[in-house]
Amino acid sequence: MAVTIESLFGGTVAKFEQGDPPVDIAKLRTAHPEHWMRAAAIRTLTLDAVAAANSGHSGMPMGMADVATVLFEKHLKFDASAPLWHDRDRFILSAGHGSMLVYSLLYLTGYAEMPLEEVKNFRQMNAKTAGHPENFLLDGVETTTGPLGQGIANAVGFAIAEETLRARFGKKLQDHYTYCIAGDGCLMEGISHEAIALAGRQKLSKLIVFWDNNNITIDGTVDLSDRTDQPQRFKAAGWHVQEIDGHDPEAIDAAITAAKNTGKPSMIACKTHIALGHAQQDTSKGHGALTDADQMKAAKEAYGWTAAPFEVPAEIKAQWEAIGSRGREERAAWEARLDEQSDRRKAEFARTFAGEAPNKLSSVIRALKKQISESAPKVATRKSSEMVLEVVNPVLPETIGGSADLTGSNNTLTADMGTFDETNRKGRYIYYGIREHGMAAAMNGMALHGGVRPYGGTFFCFTDYARPAMRLSALMQVPVTYVMTHDSIGLGEDGPTHQPVEHLAICRATPNTLTIRPCDTVETAEAWEIALTSQKTPTVLALTRQGLPTLRKDHKVKNLVAQGGYVLADSDGKRQAILIATGSEVEIAMKARDILQEAGIGTRVVSMPCMELFAEQDLAYRRKVLPAGPVRVGVEAGARAGGWDKLLLGERGREQKQAFVGLDRFGASAPIDELYEKFGITAENVVAQVKALLA
Amino acid sequence: MAVTIESLFGGTVAKFEQGDPPVDIAKLRTAHPEHWMRAAAIRTLTLDAVAAANSGHSGMPMGMADVATVLFEKHLKFDASAPLWHDRDRFILSAGHGSMLVYSLLYLTGYAEMPLEEVKNFRQMNAKTAGHPENFLLDGVETTTGPLGQGIANAVGFAIAEETLRARFGKKLQDHYTYCIAGDGCLMEGISHEAIALAGRQKLSKLIVFWDNNNITIDGTVDLSDRTDQPQRFKAAGWHVQEIDGHDPEAIDAAITAAKNTGKPSMIACKTHIALGHAQQDTSKGHGALTDADQMKAAKEAYGWTAAPFEVPAEIKAQWEAIGSRGREERAAWEARLDEQSDRRKAEFARTFAGEAPNKLSSVIRALKKQISESAPKVATRKSSEMVLEVVNPVLPETIGGSADLTGSNNTLTADMGTFDETNRKGRYIYYGIREHGMAAAMNGMALHGGVRPYGGTFFCFTDYARPAMRLSALMQVPVTYVMTHDSIGLGEDGPTHQPVEHLAICRATPNTLTIRPCDTVETAEAWEIALTSQKTPTVLALTRQGLPTLRKDHKVKNLVAQGGYVLADSDGKRQAILIATGSEVEIAMKARDILQEAGIGTRVVSMPCMELFAEQDLAYRRKVLPAGPVRVGVEAGARAGGWDKLLLGERGREQKQAFVGLDRFGASAPIDELYEKFGITAENVVAQVKALLA
Repeated sequence: MAVTIESLFGGTVAKFEQGDPPVDIAKLRTAHPEHWMRAAAIRTLTLDAVAAANSGHSGMPMGMADVATVLFEKHLKFDASAPLWHDRDRFILSAGHGSMLVYSLLYLTGYAEMPLEEVKNFRQMNAKTAGHPENFLLDGVETTTGPLGQGIANAVGFAIAEETLRARFGKKLQDHYTYCIAGDGCLMEGISHEAIALAGRQKLSKLIVFWDNNNITIDGTVDLSDRTDQPQRFKAAGWHVQEIDGHDPEAIDAAITAAKNTGKPSMIACKTHIALGHAQQDTSKGHGALTDADQMKAAKEAYGWTAAPFEVPAEIKAQWEAIGSRGREERAAWEARLDEQSDRRKAEFARTFAGEAPNKLSSVIRALKKQISESAPKVATRKSSEMVLEVVNPVLPETIGGSADLTGSNNTLTADMGTFDETNRKGRYIYYGIREHGMAAAMNGMALHGGVRPYGGTFFCFTDYARPAMRLSALMQVPVTYVMTHDSIGLGEDGPTHQPVEHLAICRATPNTLTIRPCDTVETAEAWEIALTSQKTPTVLALTRQGLPTLRKDHKVKNLVAQGGYVLADSDGKRQAILIATGSEVEIAMKARDILQEAGIGTRVVSMPCMELFAEQDLAYRRKVLPAGPVRVGVEAGARAGGWDKLLLGERGREQKQAFVGLDRFGASAPIDELYEKFGITAENVVAQVKALLA
Repeated sequence: MAVTIESLFGGTVAKFEQGDPPVDIAKLRTAHPEHWMRAAAIRTLTLDAVAAANSGHSGMPMGMADVATVLFEKHLKFDASAPLWHDRDRFILSAGHGSMLVYSLLYLTGYAEMPLEEVKNFRQMNAKTAGHPENFLLDGVETTTGPLGQGIANAVGFAIAEETLRARFGKKLQDHYTYCIAGDGCLMEGISHEAIALAGRQKLSKLIVFWDNNNITIDGTVDLSDRTDQPQRFKAAGWHVQEIDGHDPEAIDAAITAAKNTGKPSMIACKTHIALGHAQQDTSKGHGALTDADQMKAAKEAYGWTAAPFEVPAEIKAQWEAIGSRGREERAAWEARLDEQSDRRKAEFARTFAGEAPNKLSSVIRALKKQISESAPKVATRKSSEMVLEVVNPVLPETIGGSADLTGSNNTLTADMGTFDETNRKGRYIYYGIREHGMAAAMNGMALHGGVRPYGGTFFCFTDYARPAMRLSALMQVPVTYVMTHDSIGLGEDGPTHQPVEHLAICRATPNTLTIRPCDTVETAEAWEIALTSQKTPTVLALTRQGLPTLRKDHKVKNLVAQGGYVLADSDGKRQAILIATGSEVEIAMKARDILQEAGIGTRVVSMPCMELFAEQDLAYRRKVLPAGPVRVGVEAGARAGGWDKLLLGERGREQKQAFVGLDRFGASAPIDELYEKFGITAENVVAQVKALLA
């Protein structure tokens, strides 16, 4: 394919393909006139909204308007009056910058949440029509996209959810497709590799991805940076592939139909022209905001569009609204089938999709806590986590667990889960492979779909790989659970590439994220209870590789981790020192306390498994746990930047003598005890710090 | 391919391939007896070292010993007595857990830094033989690996470096290959997709990757999580592919020879048996530490190995040392060729590989600073960065710039750089495509190779995608520069998916990383000067999308950013308040100061472009800049967790009235001014905070 690349930065524009005849817009218009006008509505609304905002991305919706129109008109199972219908097909725009495509569709088909006013307010303060589509602003937006590659990886999760729920509740209640539009950017991102390979391996045959094959990225033509043969790539991953003209509604229709019955995930390569019909068609400028009034006018003329800005002729609007209500009968039939179910099944279905934990959860947690407080085992908290999952998974049938190829290390597999794959959709354990990022994004997709509560594991250090998806978990407000083991230098000889230092800081700095680092099995059980009852917040569990003693030997029904931090052991005698510790270092703090008490220094130990939850407690409680007066020493095998200044220096800027025993540098490869010794994270050093502060 | 998958967790082991005859070790031994014994030395040293440490990964080196032996014996251009010879071939172990492979090779070939003692000390405190190979501990380790996928992505950078340096200095001085061993894990990671596609597009024909095709990952056989047709995948990305028996030295030799002349990057799929010859051969257990004494004994017997643990028969050691000195003549010839060069060229070559900045750098920076202080333009700091690069790139011929498809937004391209690709190896600009992670890892590879000073851009929020590689930049001590633009809500309507909040916190929490957020063009120039003279520390530049006034109008030769923080404007009258701000918020602080001074409140403004550098200043300086007494207000459009507690509360825990004006939640999609208003990051609010503290 000989492509003329004339760089944007040389002042000229990139060409679609040398030798290709220019697009004959008139021919497109007349070939399928009614379709054309429906699609033109998307194109013109996009142009108008972006121009009004003087900001945004015009070209992508203009390029994929035909595909979207055919999809919505002929295939997508949905009902605009019921955006959250549990058996709707899912439509995901991985190329999230093309948000006006979604917004146009929601408006045209008649979603109540998308009146014209919102379209006109595109990208303005308080509008639901944010620059990139946000799931928490609009019911009609399945997932928040913008960061490229995330949507297609979420789509894998949506497809997994459909499979598992169909296995659970039957085809009559769960039988839908997941459609996803992805662009060249998405397909260059590494996460797309993970998503595509996982979907192929899992034979997710109800996943259909449209590749917006427009040959354009921001910096120029795709060829500037990539020459991957996408069809061959997808085939290599086990996908079914078709290549079509992305502006031919008949071809689009036939391809979607064919895609539904291949037994594999399906990719439809749609050859398109970005900013079709506009002067910037097929250029990287066409990717961005097309605001030139004359050019917009000319494009509309080319479309045969005569309505005023933001106006859609009544006839065309009516056609779109008919599309929006096309699924009403099917939904009514579905509602009827749901209603025919037993009360118990209906309740379970509702509970599952509402993300509400069953009553049994708290009782099994409580029973486990009691048993642990009595037997007081010494186990790594990754093992504690497994013990919790062993009692939880049987009573929470909606959990789907997995690991990025560290199942034995993350302890994420429990008895009788069964492996989820194409031979066993009732399986509840997914072998994600070495795909931390793809796993996290799939988990997001599952949670967003509803009816599934996913958890996934890897080494805590490799949250780095999953980072963009973990941020989106927080932004999108999905209650996924990250089981992150080997959480410090405590992992020993694997060394600094594997030893987290700043990772607690990273997770704690991310808004809407609970980072819980439990000190023993009881705290781990409480942490899981919090994670599994969360509705809008993801949880990161930081768990040890190494064994820890049970410190919570005094059984309490109350979930103390829910307070974020609490007094584990108070001082004997006048309180001169407060030790604040998390996870594996709580044991160290308790040992230090023993030594200090022996020396007559009254010492309180505060376990602080979750700083975010502690910060949410009222001031009175926080002052009760951390009163002014005593010196404070924090102990955590991680960076001080992980929220310790606030806890140690005190929030009020009053005088506070304090010290931190932790690790602000990369670790080293050696056995665990030598590492703790080397870095001074020992009871002896904590004692020395206290004494120095009291001197 | 019918594979018997018997899960590790069912208590049985996974099989290589149903129907495959078991491996005939005796046949392998006799087919190439001398080669076999050389390779056996690697296998037995690996077994012994891992067993002694009771920790590590035995199987991978045992699987790839034949490939490594042939590579080192017949192809790798190197001299064990000169590990840093600039024209050596590079050998990278992407499957870093197989570190004993590298260590065995370094010991056997006679690297002075790898006496037997170090091998015996594998994974012990202070050993150079860390769990995963670390470049800063051993000259013979080209790059630190362990986190999967990084090595192969670094390898792309090494190959790019060779191409660019060959174009610069000629084939007589730079002509070598980059060899990389990657496993299934590396190839599942998303970053491998980015690396492979980039290498294919760039036709990096001197990059040769060996795929350790052993069908095993930690959780079981590869099939459990992946069915990607790797050869087809690589071909789709433009690579040359061969498939061989990884235990046949003749086939290995022929494949490497063939791989050198394809005009494309080359992948050699080596079918191997993990833990060859051991009872755990072809099992996931074989991936880990094989310490059972009886099984080890049996394996050695199978190998025909009779020497005691850690002992290598003199004859075999001699063969290996001959391999290690095989390149001595070639290196001598190279040294002679280097010596023949003009003094100027030799000096330039030396300077370039030493990573030292030329004298001209400081003078062009100084001249620019002066010119900017005089003309006082109002520009976004991303534009400032471009202005700096415009004067720097001509005097620093070793810079290689690029962007992950945001060239126009990151302002990373300057005049006359030329595009680096297969038609122009003298080009100094790389269009990385939408591959933030691959870009960062390639930059690491380039820097590690030596002779190249890379910088690359994306949106600051998408440091999330590059995170694992950015951490490695710090761990490996490579002075790459990350040009991260659109650094806050200041980017406006693109919204919360694009607006950094916690990213300064993340970068600042990472050890050995300079995070610089300049307030104007003068500070940007100083930041670049720091970045370009750094030897062992990566720099992250956080730059704005929006225009900023020049605040440093009083020209100073001294690099004030190098102090981390400094007084930009002192108080008129008694100093009652200190405002600490960074980047775009320094302007806000200065406006607040105007208002406060007007109200008779003496206010100092401290610009704090780099907290790490400030922390390195002596206590006297820090107290001079931030004396106790005045109230303190911090201003930064980011999370307080970004190091602000320490600056505001004071390090000594003395009483300190303070407040922070920033953003601890996700942003929103709206025009910039409305966002700053909405989130209260305004001069008025800063003033209000000061007054409240003084009340």
